[in-house]
Amino acid sequence: MGCEVKGLEGVIAGDTAISTVGKKDMGLTYRGYSVEDLSEHASFEEVAYLLIHDKLPNHRELEEYRTALVNMRGVPDRLKVVLESLPPASHPMDVLRTGCSALGAIEPETAEREQDQYRVADRLLASFPYMLLYWYRFHQSGARISHESGQREMAGHILALLNGMPPEAIVRKAINASLVLYAEHEFNASTFSARVTASTLSDFHSAVTAAIGTLSGPLHGGANEQAMKMITPLRSPDEAEKEILRMLAAKKKVMGFGHRVYKKQPDPRSSIMKEWARRLSAEAGDMGLFLIFERIEEVMFREKKLFANVDFYGALTYHLCGIPTELFTPVFALARVSGWAAHIIEQRADNKLIRPSAEYIGPEARAYVPLDERP
Amino acid sequence: MGCEVKGLEGVIAGDTAISTVGKKDMGLTYRGYSVEDLSEHASFEEVAYLLIHDKLPNHRELEEYRTALVNMRGVPDRLKVVLESLPPASHPMDVLRTGCSALGAIEPETAEREQDQYRVADRLLASFPYMLLYWYRFHQSGARISHESGQREMAGHILALLNGMPPEAIVRKAINASLVLYAEHEFNASTFSARVTASTLSDFHSAVTAAIGTLSGPLHGGANEQAMKMITPLRSPDEAEKEILRMLAAKKKVMGFGHRVYKKQPDPRSSIMKEWARRLSAEAGDMGLFLIFERIEEVMFREKKLFANVDFYGALTYHLCGIPTELFTPVFALARVSGWAAHIIEQRADNKLIRPSAEYIGPEARAYVPLDERP
Repeated sequence: MGCEVKGLEGVIAGDTAISTVGKKDMGLTYRGYSVEDLSEHASFEEVAYLLIHDKLPNHRELEEYRTALVNMRGVPDRLKVVLESLPPASHPMDVLRTGCSALGAIEPETAEREQDQYRVADRLLASFPYMLLYWYRFHQSGARISHESGQREMAGHILALLNGMPPEAIVRKAINASLVLYAEHEFNASTFSARVTASTLSDFHSAVTAAIGTLSGPLHGGANEQAMKMITPLRSPDEAEKEILRMLAAKKKVMGFGHRVYKKQPDPRSSIMKEWARRLSAEAGDMGLFLIFERIEEVMFREKKLFANVDFYGALTYHLCGIPTELFTPVFALARVSGWAAHIIEQRADNKLIRPSAEYIGPEARAYVPLDERP
Repeated sequence: MGCEVKGLEGVIAGDTAISTVGKKDMGLTYRGYSVEDLSEHASFEEVAYLLIHDKLPNHRELEEYRTALVNMRGVPDRLKVVLESLPPASHPMDVLRTGCSALGAIEPETAEREQDQYRVADRLLASFPYMLLYWYRFHQSGARISHESGQREMAGHILALLNGMPPEAIVRKAINASLVLYAEHEFNASTFSARVTASTLSDFHSAVTAAIGTLSGPLHGGANEQAMKMITPLRSPDEAEKEILRMLAAKKKVMGFGHRVYKKQPDPRSSIMKEWARRLSAEAGDMGLFLIFERIEEVMFREKKLFANVDFYGALTYHLCGIPTELFTPVFALARVSGWAAHIIEQRADNKLIRPSAEYIGPEARAYVPLDERP
């Protein structure tokens, strides 16, 4: 009692065994494994299995899991009608939020939640790429694409649905690494939002729908899209430096920098995404954009002592992989649904309603004034 | 820092000037006015105006506000297609959540949020009854009802859309009182959820969509539906007493009792709803169900010292007003959207990202095991 902290900064809102962020010299780990190892060696499905089912799958478990996910990739016809009804100009995050909510109305979680929640988690993970890209390709070209992408792994599946052809190996690997890095991050705002919703014992789809909406904001997942949009018009490192100095002088927020939990140490995901951006740039034989990003990173640290967060080089990596800018945050969501699912399951296992108090700063009690006597 | 409270019970998560709950002997007030006065004298639109626009409207302002709301009651054809695509067996809360999200994709908030957020708030308030009941009546009878209900006030509008005829005066007044009582309640879980979503600077529809999902849970708004379903089979006060004692002995939760902020004092909304339930029962010449509810209230206080919350007699009032049980929580949502809107606007006015920390209780850092070496 008596604890008051705006934005709940530093307030411990609960326990988690899923990931730890910058504590006890552990860096960022998922169930104890470092994101450096996971993003280099593991496929996204292994990481999703680790987060949701609490162990690294062996060969047989992984193949069974992949098969299960492949079989859950399609969406009901009713949902296709919903997706076709959303305008071409909609933001794709609004589409994903609506699609997730509609799937919950069409295929609700059953009352046997202890078992069924795992089915729902896997179903959302499996169907989100097609849900998003069915809408995207339909409104781009009128095509009603199939969910059969010919790709068994998530990264390849996303790229094949987007482009209508199998991806290059380096692009697939870069996207896989980004999905691993985006999968989970403790009590970030969208995950916390999923836990608040789950804490009323609401259904799984409600919690994930809430999380998608929360992730959309530019102070959270929306940062990668905003960073790219800001940087795209810049032509050279020198021009970038001038623009950043101008923005800082005007006290404008530079997206992709700073993070609630990475104030004294860099975001460990950032250097991994940076290396992928460097490799993709070298592969393409064009370091131009990379050098612009690197200069901005230098200027922000020199001027503000702010570290780039995962969204900064994440944006460049997605750009170099040919992901359209407006799909940056939705692709983040396709990965983070694994972390949301793990947290919803964890919240339910030891649930208590998340209902804080407020400090009242409004008017004192006052007498009601009848309508006819109001000035 | 260092503050840890499960469920954030008693933790002050921020300031609010909108309502105060059980502090400083004020009871429950909206912007300083008691809910007793407001539910007896004010129409729901006056209260929504008070919450969102921070003053009791005078005669002219109220009429202009009602006209504005009446003009925003319809929904786009695209949204009708979405609503028709959701199955008849969907839970109406899933429908409202999906409808709100889809409206956000179809009619997004503009970048000029400081002005546009008021339009969006009013639009959601105005269109939610039709959104919900268009779907409901379409799947009940195939009818595509008009949003022109012939009723200028919200309570009458809801009842006329539901029943296809003008409501009786006493029913309209009871529903109006319930909408006033359900409009706002400080940092309850759904409102807090709306604020968490808004704190990433996400859009208005994302925040309201999150709140609808959070309200659905049986530990929150879903309680009125659950209470009614539990009580419906009971035939007499004595049978009710036996059933409650049986449930308590089996350590089952009795819905409609207990509340995070009403532990030592009763919920002030409960006695008002109880009086409406009594009046409606007397009017109908049948006190049978009322006496069953009253006995349950007595037993719960005698055995557990728990007070009935707003959802207990709220359920009976809705039942007596002819609201189908599965629409109890959605009707609650039609009212609460006014409080959510006020809180989203307040959060934005002095925003800080709501991002707590977690206590890590998972495994220590451990070495990654390559796929082929896993047991």
